Amino acid sequence: MTGTPGAEPFDAVDVIRTKRDGHPLEAAQIDWVVDAYTRGAVAEEQMSALAMAILLRGMTRPEVARWTGAMIASGERMDFSGLSRPTSDKHSTGGVGDKITLPLAPLVASFGVAVPQLSGRGLGHTGGTLDKLEAIPGWRASLSNAELMAQLEDVGAVVCAAGAGLAPADKKLYALRDVTGTVESVPLIASSIMSKKIAEGTGALVLDVKVGSGAFMKDLDAARELARTMVDLGTDAGVRTVALLTDMEVPLGRTAGNALEVRESVEVLDGGGPADVVDLTVALAVEMLAGAGRPVPEAEVRAALGDGRAKDVWRRMIAAQGGDPDAPLPRARERREVLADRSGVVTRLDAYAVGIAAWRLGAGRSRREDPVQAGAGVELHAKPGDEITAGQPLLTLHTDTPARFERASAALAGRWSVDDAGSAGPRPLVLDRVG
Amino acid sequence: MTGTPGAEPFDAVDVIRTKRDGHPLEAAQIDWVVDAYTRGAVAEEQMSALAMAILLRGMTRPEVARWTGAMIASGERMDFSGLSRPTSDKHSTGGVGDKITLPLAPLVASFGVAVPQLSGRGLGHTGGTLDKLEAIPGWRASLSNAELMAQLEDVGAVVCAAGAGLAPADKKLYALRDVTGTVESVPLIASSIMSKKIAEGTGALVLDVKVGSGAFMKDLDAARELARTMVDLGTDAGVRTVALLTDMEVPLGRTAGNALEVRESVEVLDGGGPADVVDLTVALAVEMLAGAGRPVPEAEVRAALGDGRAKDVWRRMIAAQGGDPDAPLPRARERREVLADRSGVVTRLDAYAVGIAAWRLGAGRSRREDPVQAGAGVELHAKPGDEITAGQPLLTLHTDTPARFERASAALAGRWSVDDAGSAGPRPLVLDRVG
Repeated sequence: MTGTPGAEPFDAVDVIRTKRDGHPLEAAQIDWVVDAYTRGAVAEEQMSALAMAILLRGMTRPEVARWTGAMIASGERMDFSGLSRPTSDKHSTGGVGDKITLPLAPLVASFGVAVPQLSGRGLGHTGGTLDKLEAIPGWRASLSNAELMAQLEDVGAVVCAAGAGLAPADKKLYALRDVTGTVESVPLIASSIMSKKIAEGTGALVLDVKVGSGAFMKDLDAARELARTMVDLGTDAGVRTVALLTDMEVPLGRTAGNALEVRESVEVLDGGGPADVVDLTVALAVEMLAGAGRPVPEAEVRAALGDGRAKDVWRRMIAAQGGDPDAPLPRARERREVLADRSGVVTRLDAYAVGIAAWRLGAGRSRREDPVQAGAGVELHAKPGDEITAGQPLLTLHTDTPARFERASAALAGRWSVDDAGSAGPRPLVLDRVG
Repeated sequence: MTGTPGAEPFDAVDVIRTKRDGHPLEAAQIDWVVDAYTRGAVAEEQMSALAMAILLRGMTRPEVARWTGAMIASGERMDFSGLSRPTSDKHSTGGVGDKITLPLAPLVASFGVAVPQLSGRGLGHTGGTLDKLEAIPGWRASLSNAELMAQLEDVGAVVCAAGAGLAPADKKLYALRDVTGTVESVPLIASSIMSKKIAEGTGALVLDVKVGSGAFMKDLDAARELARTMVDLGTDAGVRTVALLTDMEVPLGRTAGNALEVRESVEVLDGGGPADVVDLTVALAVEMLAGAGRPVPEAEVRAALGDGRAKDVWRRMIAAQGGDPDAPLPRARERREVLADRSGVVTRLDAYAVGIAAWRLGAGRSRREDPVQAGAGVELHAKPGDEITAGQPLLTLHTDTPARFERASAALAGRWSVDDAGSAGPRPLVLDRVG
């Protein structure tokens, strides 16, 4: 309430009203509200009203930069400058079947660049990298800072859980946005991602901004705006940052689910795997290596997937975190096939529907504290452009709990098409580059 | 989260997103979200995000009607149909120095119409009617439904606290809006006021919609929209409803504060008092009597203020709730004068500033659980249009705690003017009528 006496230099309602009425927040207001929210002096319901006002009113470039800086200042910063290798990291805005981190981190590390991939868990229809790797028997996501540094120096690649000390304001705000319909805001998404990546201390960063039904950004213009905002934030903070805008109308590869995606990633590291996963892994690796000041021609990067160099780093990376790279992967106890109802060419297979189906089968969680099923998910036998015969399986659904089949099938109903003509050829995978 | 399994028929995030993206809420969504919020199944932070989306996106006429209905349905309804008298109520959207209820309720009751005035406490710069009456020694705000009915039948006028059973959804939502910057929304204000008044069961209702610096509505168009919305809601629910739009650029009367306003109200009931308080009391009484089907000419209404009829009902109304109408009223221990810095005509005396000053002196509360000072407030010795001499008191500040003088004076600095010419004559009090 205006003028309420108290120890705080600002009043939360005044800050909310400023943004609500379409005015830019002052730098001091931003610093205060982010800090006070982290301390608990601004309540969850006040921050959610502010987040909705930000979503609907937007933020200027200086506001986003200040907000990001305030989130970084809410916690600790890491420092990789003592390493003998340069560092380069990748962040994906989240898609269906997006297992790219798994082959990518060891691939880039095989060229002498350290990849500190501090990751999160899945919430909603997009999977989490840590959930995927936890399908490998013995593998653990938590590392101390000292273990992280040692593994980066020795192996060159780490995928682990971000420590609680990194941008705690973002952790709190992200959980709030998830339950209050305030996720889809360019300023809030950009500041959330970039505060963690800048605090992490990576030297270079490649952003994989997904566009399409399976992504937060449904159209190219919004994705380009998000990419531009994040690249500017990174560049201004001294991180060499580029973004690729990539297609997410259809799932990446032929699997969505934890162990299913690990299996497909290992196929890629063995020189096989689906072409789209291989192509995107190579494209991102080329950017990460260039950003780290170690440019490598694309053909040579691609070769490292076939000749065992990347696979060797993978095995050491998994083993260093307690995982057994040779152990059989978990499989779901129950499977059900979705059959093609006619012969023809697959013209549509909606990424969002596949993501929701995999989630409902048990690959994802509804609440942060829920467990996931390692074996659950969706296997794709044909993708847009592929021919299929009536009665043949289009998809296989995997779960430990067959009661989940119905709701998963419901998510897929009407979300795929088989037609006579193959007019719908594959879309380009990389739609644009922002650097 | 979309598709989260659970026992609820809707998902709060889906409802928030619908409004956020500018679509009308379905009737079933509204019924559910208001009910689920009352039960606690929709969290405070979710409702605050929805409230902000409603504030910025608006609501259609059918949405507001449904929202109001859902708030009524969250609690009990009262029924005055067993009374021998018709009922008529008044609601003010809140202003500075607005003590009109005090003379108005007994005035209307003196003509045989029952006035069930279920009131609230002050929060912020506008005072609360219950706080004012509690300045009278012995008076108590809480009545049982049986006591309320008996007093309406016997005395004809009751001012008491609204029971917790009336529109509990509104009680919860109002407290939330107050701390999340989501008060100033026509759909939310209209549904909050009208849900309580319709649930209360009054036969007729006169709305006093304040316009100006001391009101929530700062301009006439917004006030007219609010009035129109509320009149339609009342009419559709079978309550004969009209609204007067009245000026709130300057405080009403010459006092703002609890005991100070009771004293001024008693002056009006004794046939004296400031002209603006008398005029507005009479104008609202004429409307209330007409709405109840007992029209009385203005001159006769005015006469009842001078000849003791209204005063007699006042004495019985106060005594019925334990108050002593003859007891001396509390006075603040400390007084400080604000002097005119030049001679001339007062051209400005900002209502909002006076409200904030009275609040800071102790007449109002910052938090619901704070006590108020009965004697605190601001006394006005001159109002716009009045002449004043340099060095003479313009205002007197009253408080028990002299440490509060500084912040109260600060609120008033630069918010009043004395000039040579008296071009700024008094504005009309009643600006428009919506019926």
